[in-house]
Amino acid sequence: MEALDYHAEERRKAEFDLEEMKIVWAGSRQNYEISDRMARLVASDPVFRKDNRTMLSRKDLFKDTLRKAAHAWKRIIELRLSEEEAHMLRSYVDQPAFTDLHWGMFIPAIKGQGTEEQHEKWLPMAYKMQIIGCYAQTELGHGSNVQGLETTATFDPQTDEFVIHSPTLTSSKWWPGGLGKVSTHAVVYARLITGAQDHGVHGFIVQLRSLDDHSPLPGITVGDIGMKFGSGAYNSMDNGLLRFDHVRIPRNQMLMRVSQVTREGKFVQSDVPRQLVYGTMVYVRQTIVSDASCALARAVCIATRYSAVRRQFGSQNGGPETQVIDYKTQQSRLFPLLASAYAFRFVGEWLKWLYTDVTQRLQANDFSTLPEAHACTAGLKSMTTSVTADAIEECRKLCGGHGYLSNSGLPELFAVYIPTCTYEGDNVVLLLQVARFLMKTVSQLGSGKKPVGTTAYMGRAEHLMQCHCEVERAADWLKPSVILEAFEARAFRMSIACAKNLSKFSNPEDGFSELSPDLLEAAIAHCQLIVVSKYIEKLQQDIPGKGVKRQLEILCNVYALHLLHKHLGDFVTTSCITPKQGALANEQLRLLYSQVRPNAITLVDAFNYTDHYLGSVLGCYNGNVYQRLYEEAWKDPLNDTVVPDGYLEYVWPILKQHIRTARL
Amino acid sequence: MEALDYHAEERRKAEFDLEEMKIVWAGSRQNYEISDRMARLVASDPVFRKDNRTMLSRKDLFKDTLRKAAHAWKRIIELRLSEEEAHMLRSYVDQPAFTDLHWGMFIPAIKGQGTEEQHEKWLPMAYKMQIIGCYAQTELGHGSNVQGLETTATFDPQTDEFVIHSPTLTSSKWWPGGLGKVSTHAVVYARLITGAQDHGVHGFIVQLRSLDDHSPLPGITVGDIGMKFGSGAYNSMDNGLLRFDHVRIPRNQMLMRVSQVTREGKFVQSDVPRQLVYGTMVYVRQTIVSDASCALARAVCIATRYSAVRRQFGSQNGGPETQVIDYKTQQSRLFPLLASAYAFRFVGEWLKWLYTDVTQRLQANDFSTLPEAHACTAGLKSMTTSVTADAIEECRKLCGGHGYLSNSGLPELFAVYIPTCTYEGDNVVLLLQVARFLMKTVSQLGSGKKPVGTTAYMGRAEHLMQCHCEVERAADWLKPSVILEAFEARAFRMSIACAKNLSKFSNPEDGFSELSPDLLEAAIAHCQLIVVSKYIEKLQQDIPGKGVKRQLEILCNVYALHLLHKHLGDFVTTSCITPKQGALANEQLRLLYSQVRPNAITLVDAFNYTDHYLGSVLGCYNGNVYQRLYEEAWKDPLNDTVVPDGYLEYVWPILKQHIRTARL
Repeated sequence: MEALDYHAEERRKAEFDLEEMKIVWAGSRQNYEISDRMARLVASDPVFRKDNRTMLSRKDLFKDTLRKAAHAWKRIIELRLSEEEAHMLRSYVDQPAFTDLHWGMFIPAIKGQGTEEQHEKWLPMAYKMQIIGCYAQTELGHGSNVQGLETTATFDPQTDEFVIHSPTLTSSKWWPGGLGKVSTHAVVYARLITGAQDHGVHGFIVQLRSLDDHSPLPGITVGDIGMKFGSGAYNSMDNGLLRFDHVRIPRNQMLMRVSQVTREGKFVQSDVPRQLVYGTMVYVRQTIVSDASCALARAVCIATRYSAVRRQFGSQNGGPETQVIDYKTQQSRLFPLLASAYAFRFVGEWLKWLYTDVTQRLQANDFSTLPEAHACTAGLKSMTTSVTADAIEECRKLCGGHGYLSNSGLPELFAVYIPTCTYEGDNVVLLLQVARFLMKTVSQLGSGKKPVGTTAYMGRAEHLMQCHCEVERAADWLKPSVILEAFEARAFRMSIACAKNLSKFSNPEDGFSELSPDLLEAAIAHCQLIVVSKYIEKLQQDIPGKGVKRQLEILCNVYALHLLHKHLGDFVTTSCITPKQGALANEQLRLLYSQVRPNAITLVDAFNYTDHYLGSVLGCYNGNVYQRLYEEAWKDPLNDTVVPDGYLEYVWPILKQHIRTARL
Repeated sequence: MEALDYHAEERRKAEFDLEEMKIVWAGSRQNYEISDRMARLVASDPVFRKDNRTMLSRKDLFKDTLRKAAHAWKRIIELRLSEEEAHMLRSYVDQPAFTDLHWGMFIPAIKGQGTEEQHEKWLPMAYKMQIIGCYAQTELGHGSNVQGLETTATFDPQTDEFVIHSPTLTSSKWWPGGLGKVSTHAVVYARLITGAQDHGVHGFIVQLRSLDDHSPLPGITVGDIGMKFGSGAYNSMDNGLLRFDHVRIPRNQMLMRVSQVTREGKFVQSDVPRQLVYGTMVYVRQTIVSDASCALARAVCIATRYSAVRRQFGSQNGGPETQVIDYKTQQSRLFPLLASAYAFRFVGEWLKWLYTDVTQRLQANDFSTLPEAHACTAGLKSMTTSVTADAIEECRKLCGGHGYLSNSGLPELFAVYIPTCTYEGDNVVLLLQVARFLMKTVSQLGSGKKPVGTTAYMGRAEHLMQCHCEVERAADWLKPSVILEAFEARAFRMSIACAKNLSKFSNPEDGFSELSPDLLEAAIAHCQLIVVSKYIEKLQQDIPGKGVKRQLEILCNVYALHLLHKHLGDFVTTSCITPKQGALANEQLRLLYSQVRPNAITLVDAFNYTDHYLGSVLGCYNGNVYQRLYEEAWKDPLNDTVVPDGYLEYVWPILKQHIRTARL
């Protein structure tokens, strides 16, 4: 049975070199090898087992998470893993834990906002995990609007301390991961008050719990905020609440890289440029885009493999029914998501480059590209995570009824993924930032200031307002230049239309608010253009391996043309294309689906996911789905006994007509 | 604190008579009163408490469900509730249970497919719940394609019995609710075999468990299929698996209303028209549409109330921030869903009328309207449930971060709702049926056969192909006739375009399969037209109450114009409207949002949901959200202790650098 592979025939159909595609997906041979090694390490270790996760009670799930975190840390130390390897190992453990915040937010906040002195004091302890930290920003009443936070940090010149306080219920810190039950420390964001002056929101290192017995320190109320979406999923995380009752910390625990408070209580801005924080944002959002492609690829991998197993209708002369992946309705929903996974992967890769570019410029005190880079990452974070969240649910639907079972892996993937649309910038708020940047760019077009980076196309204003799509036959839609021009013209004309409508308002802010739904659509058009153009740029690189480039070209066309079809109204009403050309694009799209079909299974094999990581009976590598579903069912606690607990008290009295007298 | 109402000011803004609107929503004063009484009955009974549901383990949740079902039955008997009242009481208990299938599928199947004799034998026992039944149709490998079921029922003339058997793993019954742990009986669908002949799928009453000790009868393997999406939600239901090993039942347990097997083993068709089954389908799908409007209304109620509590950004001079419901981005996402809830309510009401109409015609042996009624209910089931599923998740997103908490009520509402898109006909399969019917209708247009019911508009083919939308100013879009014509023309032209493309294929089935994504879009356009036109018809009725009709008109326009904007590509590429007219519709839509805004809270109050039924901290009637979130948090089991279970084993060794030697 070892060699059992229900997908063997599908895999033989592939028209490209799988090993080379795996390297393309991973970004480099080195990435591929590290990733592969870490994934196998986790998959082969029984402590990291997760197939029973959705059946655990909250307490058991949390304890299991603590155990996995400790075990991961032990393996990281024993194997002397690099920072990159450790990060990858944790991500393959695939269970949200306090360590995500310690490494991903607490340490970076100190690194980014602390002084050299503070680095020396806190980072060694944090790196060794002698202290465990979280990032306490969001409050019960305040999320997106950071400047509206209510927690106060009032300087007391008498004692050279800050007094951290929660003046209202809505000022309670709420949501920070790792806060509820584990963290010993937090970077707390609070309004800095000196004398009677409010200097806005700043970060402070605050110890929360005793390092002896883990009990909260005096003045600190801390706990878990309760159950979240789904079973398993993010319930492994102790998202917490935190209230301060006049808690005192030494002055040197304010993170003072950018602003300081002196011994005398004077507020001073350092000469470190404030724009540095944007560098960190670009970094964090780049990782979110890269994670989006991973999550999307997982869902697509499950849905694709199961679509090749599942058969329904179409049996002829008693033969087997048709694989659902052969239905055009299935293909038209699934293959664009497969293409999106690759598209997001490549734009994520490009964002890595953008981050290094931004960093180098910051070091050279060149802030010129920062606003554009910031808008671009904000938009891509928003767009890729929204699409991925919806796509995971779409993949679940593509698995029919069985997708609803926890062991399909899709319910938990959805539940654990969706907060990404909210944290690190709510997706709608971010798109409005992009729209604002686009309107600013448009308004400066006449001024001779050349738009840069991903808005450079706006510099060709005249051309983009006049150009006509030259598609005459369906195959014309395969030309990258044709696609690119249509997407550029559409994005540009939508921005211009918004700007025109905005100019009718006497108060620009009123106009922006009133037209915000249209502005969101213009921002999305711009973001889609970025993804399409970065994919096309990727294809201009040298891509080795038999058939690899060809497959990627097909997927690129699927990505672009499915968007064109979905947003046909945009393209046609702006006269970028004619209705006839829209119909031709749709025709070409159907032809492309037929070209994807024989390669579909192998294109998801290229993600190189282990069965452990996928965590899906429907998506398992060998396709032995029905046998495994049947076996898994018996593991449910309800099947521990033949007659269920509660039968005698609640079912028997009904059947025997004793319900009136039954004690319920 | 009794009188605390954070929404009081919002409620004062309402421009219509709330009590009259409640009656409109309920359909009649009588419905309103029964519904109100049953909702309060459930809400005030501590046994029906559900606020701790997502924290229960599977076993505890299941036991809790058995208790609630028994208690509900007890109350139904004690209070001598009518069938309608009992049904409503169960629905307000709001926890999926085996009783749903017993009353909703098992009894109706016997009624619809059994003979008089079988009714007399089985129904009295079922009505008294001396037996509990479920509906065992779906198999592990077979869902939508009922004709592909593998379970066999082979007639044995020697013993006058059927032998029920599961020949393969994929023939295992899989999914039936109530089967896993509770049902004593099932209507089992199996291929009828007499001699060597396969007569296709028929229903059989099969006893599964002993009425003495509830143990499965010989030859029967039965169990629960395991955890499903979410916590709480459908995990209260024992969706089951079932295998037969040559299980024998008497011949008279085949449901024989439509077909019989004689003592000699002869297969005979009765003269009862087979179309009768479609009558049942129309009934079931009508209830699903009505339930869709309820579920959508619940989600919208939560999101609307919380949007009036939540404030973010826009504070001026230290005043309060802006209520998020005042943002146009929020309105443009929320108000169309509010309008959809009302629209689905009214189309559901109309479907009730359609069911009685169909029933009367069936009794008079008039089958002429049946195919149209069948297509129409299939399409509306598909469209309303797909929209509702997505809308619940959209409402969750509209609640920002806190929507992700279980006690927002939205995660569980989503998890419990989404299977509706799959059961009673997969939504994509159903739309393809609609498309098939539309293509047939189009092909008969020349033949003089007049299209009936919801396809009657196709009879005005010439006009619909030529008409031009006459909108010149935004306000022109408020005219029902203008809206109706645009939706009719769009639906018709999309169908015609599909038919034209289909005619290019030499094999029509190949064409249908190849063009199925386009056909789905045409079917959706047709379904949207039905909802719009039924809403407009509703407005032509006499609707009493100050301002009520006016509000409903506004919502009708919101419903239609948001669809027009969303599917702008359809309308423009078919030349039903010009891009300019599309922009005017969008402009009008914005104006309409401003008119909905002051009435929003009261429009959701009209659903008359109790806080118990809503099950949402964010959506509670008085709007005291933050206080309640804070209080609820402490109830999580993780907060039972200050220091979490697992700290000593897994956290302390990390902090104290003992991880290398720790036993994990």
